[in-house]
Order: sequence, then C-alpha cells, then structure tokens
Amino acid sequence: MTTRTTATFPPPVMEARRWLDGVDFSARPLINVSQAAPVAPPPDPMLDAMAEIIRTDPAAHLYGPVLGLPDLRAQVADEWARAYGGTVSPDHVAITSGCNQAFCAALQALTGEGDEVILPTPWYFNHKMWCDMTGVTAVPLQTGAGLIPDPETARALITPRSRAIVLVTPNNPGGVEYPPETVRAFFDLARETGLKLIVDETYRDFHSRPGAPHDLFTTPGWVDTLIQLYSFSKAYRLTGHRVGAMTAAPAILAEAEKFLDTVTICPNQLGQHAALWGMRHLGQWLAGERAEILDRRAAIEEGFPPLADKGWRLLGVGAYFAYVEHPFDIPSNELAPELVHSAGVLTLPGTMFMPDTDPAGRRQLRIAFANVDRAGISTLFDRLGGASP
Amino acid sequence: MTTRTTATFPPPVMEARRWLDGVDFSARPLINVSQAAPVAPPPDPMLDAMAEIIRTDPAAHLYGPVLGLPDLRAQVADEWARAYGGTVSPDHVAITSGCNQAFCAALQALTGEGDEVILPTPWYFNHKMWCDMTGVTAVPLQTGAGLIPDPETARALITPRSRAIVLVTPNNPGGVEYPPETVRAFFDLARETGLKLIVDETYRDFHSRPGAPHDLFTTPGWVDTLIQLYSFSKAYRLTGHRVGAMTAAPAILAEAEKFLDTVTICPNQLGQHAALWGMRHLGQWLAGERAEILDRRAAIEEGFPPLADKGWRLLGVGAYFAYVEHPFDIPSNELAPELVHSAGVLTLPGTMFMPDTDPAGRRQLRIAFANVDRAGISTLFDRLGGASP
Repeated sequence: MTTRTTATFPPPVMEARRWLDGVDFSARPLINVSQAAPVAPPPDPMLDAMAEIIRTDPAAHLYGPVLGLPDLRAQVADEWARAYGGTVSPDHVAITSGCNQAFCAALQALTGEGDEVILPTPWYFNHKMWCDMTGVTAVPLQTGAGLIPDPETARALITPRSRAIVLVTPNNPGGVEYPPETVRAFFDLARETGLKLIVDETYRDFHSRPGAPHDLFTTPGWVDTLIQLYSFSKAYRLTGHRVGAMTAAPAILAEAEKFLDTVTICPNQLGQHAALWGMRHLGQWLAGERAEILDRRAAIEEGFPPLADKGWRLLGVGAYFAYVEHPFDIPSNELAPELVHSAGVLTLPGTMFMPDTDPAGRRQLRIAFANVDRAGISTLFDRLGGASP
Repeated sequence: MTTRTTATFPPPVMEARRWLDGVDFSARPLINVSQAAPVAPPPDPMLDAMAEIIRTDPAAHLYGPVLGLPDLRAQVADEWARAYGGTVSPDHVAITSGCNQAFCAALQALTGEGDEVILPTPWYFNHKMWCDMTGVTAVPLQTGAGLIPDPETARALITPRSRAIVLVTPNNPGGVEYPPETVRAFFDLARETGLKLIVDETYRDFHSRPGAPHDLFTTPGWVDTLIQLYSFSKAYRLTGHRVGAMTAAPAILAEAEKFLDTVTICPNQLGQHAALWGMRHLGQWLAGERAEILDRRAAIEEGFPPLADKGWRLLGVGAYFAYVEHPFDIPSNELAPELVHSAGVLTLPGTMFMPDTDPAGRRQLRIAFANVDRAGISTLFDRLGGASP
C-alpha cells in the first residue's frame, strides 16, 4: 500500500546511528561527525535564566499563540532589520518547532499535489523527504564543481508546476556560502517567473562574511518573493528545545498558521523564552562560538593536503560542514558504515544527499566538523588518510 | 492557487481569540470556555524537577531519538499494560510533539492522496484540518442523540479508499465517554474490514470509569488494528511543552518516524523529562485533579435544569467538555461572537466541529469547562440563561 510515508526513505541520521550498534569503541573512541549539532548544553547563564522562567512565569507552561511569542517575533524582526538592512516587522515573523518545521510549513502554504520545487544538489535530505511525503516533485538542480547553483541552469528547469526554489546557505551538506550575487540572481529569477525563493539560513551565525550575507531584505516588495528560514538550535545550543523561525509575507504566515496549529498547536514555550534570552544576552558569546567554528574550518583547509595527496578532494567547506570526495572504488553508502569499523569515524554518505539517479553522491561524504576541535580534526584526517577499505 | 493549506480553514481557537479584540471586560470579567487547557502551571515539585534537569542533564538540551526518550517510552508501555491489561512494550510507543502531531503522523503512515478516513461528528477540528491538508477525505459519521457513533452506520460508509476510523473518547467536543462495547465493536469492524482504528485518548485521565475504558489492548494481535493516541498536556498541565504519544505496531512507528524526523527531528527533551517525572511522581496528585474535574462535570449536570427550562439542551458532558444545543434563531457561528459582547462568555460554535453540510452544528456550542470551578459554572449558566441575542 502506498502512503505518504512509504513515498520516502527512513531518516538518514537514525540509520547512521544504527551502524554503531555492537561496535566496540573502548580502544579507539568514535569520532562522530554525522550530525550537525552542538554536543554541549547552552552556557550557564542561559540555564539559570531557563530555570528562573520555569519557576516564575506560569505562562511558559501554557499554550501560546500558534505563530509564536510576540516578543520573540519582534526580536527576530529587529535583528534581521539591523543585520540585513531593509524592513522586517514582527508580523513578518513566525516561530516554529525547529527549522525543519518552518520548511514544511512553507511548502504546505505554497504547493499542492503534483507541484514542483527546485532543490540544488547535494540537497538537505529532510527537504527531499518532505517533498516526497507531500506529493511534491523535488527537481534536482546539479551544482557541479564548487557546489554553487547556477540561476540560468535553474531557469531551464522551471515548468508550469514549479512553485519555489530552495537555497540553503551556508549550505548543508556542502558547507559552501553562496555569494550574495548568486542569492540575488536567484531572487530575481524567482520574482521574474512568479516563484517563491526559500532561503534556509540555519547556519547564518557561522557565516565567514562580516557583513550581511545577502541584500534581499533591502528590496522593496521582498515579501512577494522571499521566505527566509532560521534555526535557534545551532547558535544557542538549543537543538533539544526545537525552535526555528520563518520570515515571510503575513499572508504566507496566515496559511502556514493552519499547518502549524494542526501539527503542534504552538512552539514549545520554554524553548522560545530561551531563544529570546539568547538573542538579548548572548551576542558576545555567540561571536566567540563563531570564531571557534571559523578556526575549525581553517583547520580543515590547512589539514587537507595530506588527504589530497591520497586522492581525497575537498569539495566544499564552511559553517558546520566539509563535503569531500573519497578516492575509493566502493560507493559511499557502503564506505560510510565500513569507516565506522575500520577508522572509528561516523560520516554520512553523499548518497543520502543526492537523487538515486546522480552517481556523484557515491563518491562523496559529509563531515559535520563543528564538534571536533583542531586536535580532533587532525586525528580525524589521520584516520581517513589511513583508511583502505 | 490551490495549496495544501488553502484546502482547509483557519485555526478555530485563534479565530475565537480575535473575537475578544477591543472588547472591554473591566466591568465583567470574561468567562473563557473556548480552549481545552489548564490555566495553571504544573505543581511546584514538578517545576523544581524541571529546573534541576535543566541544570544537571546536558542531554536534555540536545537532539534525542526521533521516537522519543527510551525511558518515557518504557514508562508509557508499563502504565498502559497495567491500566488496560494486555501486552504493550516500549517499541510499541512513540513520543510526539503533542497529540495533534501523533494524529498527523498516524495519518501520514496510513493514507495517500484521495484516501478516506471516517470521523464521527461533531469532530475535532484539527483532525478535519489535517485530512484537508493531506489530501484525505474526512467522511462524517453522524452520531445523533447521545453523540455515540454506531458501528453499523460506519460500516455503510466504508469504501475501497477507506483507511481508518477515528474515535475520540472521552470525546472532544462532545464530552461523552464511549462505552467499552462501542469501542470494541469499532475495533472488530476495523479488523474485519482491514482498516486501522485510531483511538484518541487525550482525556483518558479524566474518564469517570474507575477501571479501563476499553479492553482493546488485551486482544491478541491488537497491533494489527489499533493506533492509540495520548497527550501529557492535560494530566500534567504541560500544554506549553508539547508532548504526546502514539501506541501502535513497530512497523507503523517506523513509518511515522519518517514524518516526525522531517517535521521536528525529535520531541523537545525537557517536556519529555517533565512528562516522565509526572508519570513517576504525580499519580496521587492526578487523582485529585480527576476528582475535581468530575466534580465540575457534576456541577454542569446539576446546574443545567434552569437552562433547560429556557430551551437549552445538554447533548453531552464529560472530561473537559459540555456540548450544548442553544435555543436561539441565529446560527452558532454568529451566536458565539455575540455572546462575548452580550454575556461575557467565550465558547466555540458547533459549526467549527461539523461539516458545512450538516446544519446541526448551527444549534450547538462547545463549553470547555475544565478551568471553571463550581462558582464559575454557576455564573456561566446565569449569563447564558440571561442571554437574549
């Protein structure tokens, strides 16, 4: 029987976790670079603030508005207006139960059965899974060397059923930061062709550029074309609290509200309070987190040449991710579980980020390096360099 | 343009909140019986436990398994096995971001575009909304006087596209508790016809029966037919933390896992820890909460005769809800906003729980009385009895 869920594949991260079952890491601890998530809790002052909210704010335990805490919506609007320039008001912002849910809500508002959405490849697997489950065709936009999608290639993929183009920048899984002129060109293409442009900026806080990563919010009428997504999970180490955001036209949010109400009623309140506290108090701390991530990115680039000598290629690096090509004759979906045993390393294979029809994924691995410090990256590269599957 | 969300209506609770805009309640405080939710935070010992977890358990801030905390899954399995009899194991239980999400996940696992699900009317509006958004036809099963659905009437609605029958007991919005033999008859019907039976027991903790409300879990092979849904929100006052559960066959949960991963990655961790703590420590407290709700239900029944004298009818009462027929010549969707002004009472109209084709909803109102004590119920009835719209 075909159902919504049988139309797609099992969650890759859970599948990868099962590769660890029964493996003994006592002699050589696992280096787990499979999931893009902090492995430490938020800083102590935020924990204190959360504990205080629990005891003193009864409303933090009750249902709240479907589209989120008004104060948090206003804070995001202020911050986006400051960071990107342009006009963003609280009624442009919805808070969601994580950024995945923001993507799901956006697609529900934009698409119906049989519609199409253009996704650059390698793509984020949950985007593909949601398309599969909701009856939308994910149209792959190949990026080739450099992993930067080309707007004119995208133009050729547009059909009467196209509804949106999705960009993830900094990219998951590719790591690359899309140049502002690329993001702008996609916006212009979407506007010209009547599509929406969904820009997932989950990793914006770790962008290497000091200024705004794009200028879309400065465009008059941006609300007619742009839907921007964000996650509080990475910046404030709130992965377990499930808080994200969507910035879009109020009319889009009114549509999204139907989906959000039906699926979760409201985002969990404590997570929203924590995100708000983080935005208000952790700016300097977050700058330090970003500097550390950028240093680890530098360590990836500096440490790569010995791997390159053995046939590895660094296809993209940035934010939380390095996306690499391996030199072996076995496909990545066999290599990745094998590396758990032979190298004590858990990565995700490129096949998880590619349509089955594109063989490139078989040569690729995603390394989510955010949790591995310089010494760990050195060890990781030693292990990969010594692998001979 | 038709999209998933344009196929359905706006969230009723948010619409009802807008009826309050600009109304002055300073002289006469509003009696808000619109939403089924506690209005007080969890008891202090639970707040202490939550604050302690925040400070001492780093994992409570990180991603967890898609299907929930293993300890909470095990706790639910133990409790269900004890309360209902029969065999329920941890791998039969998934934790979700609230019970609405459990329903959505179940439907995604069972249905595809154009399939049908049978819902007794009055139905829970979010069930109808999800059917609309996911391309499933919600087939109304009229209940008539007593609000108890009839299995043989349901049988006549089954077609080759039918996938499931949904029961909510104690019922939202009807309040009525379905007799065990009714639940059993629907289970037998579903099993005989190859459908799934979804039983939403969000309000099970406030059932008036001392024993098990049904015996389905004692049936060998229950997993082939039954999907049971639950919410921690009402019992432990955790509405703002979004925690629910689905109990079903492991194969169904493996399908649901795809949806849950894609929409929210995992249920928020702190809410799960709170639910677990509640199940372990608040049994006696919850018994007191139940006694209070049952007393308020009794107050509804005892206080109703003067309203009946004015043409009102009590169609159903139980758990959090009284479902009533009003005596006025205007439809309930006009009456409900009018009562905000003329009576200082916020209810939801029956039209929100009925298909447009069924005129019965125009005479009906849902009263979510759980937050109103005996004195408040007396005042509520005085105001309704004095209304002359």
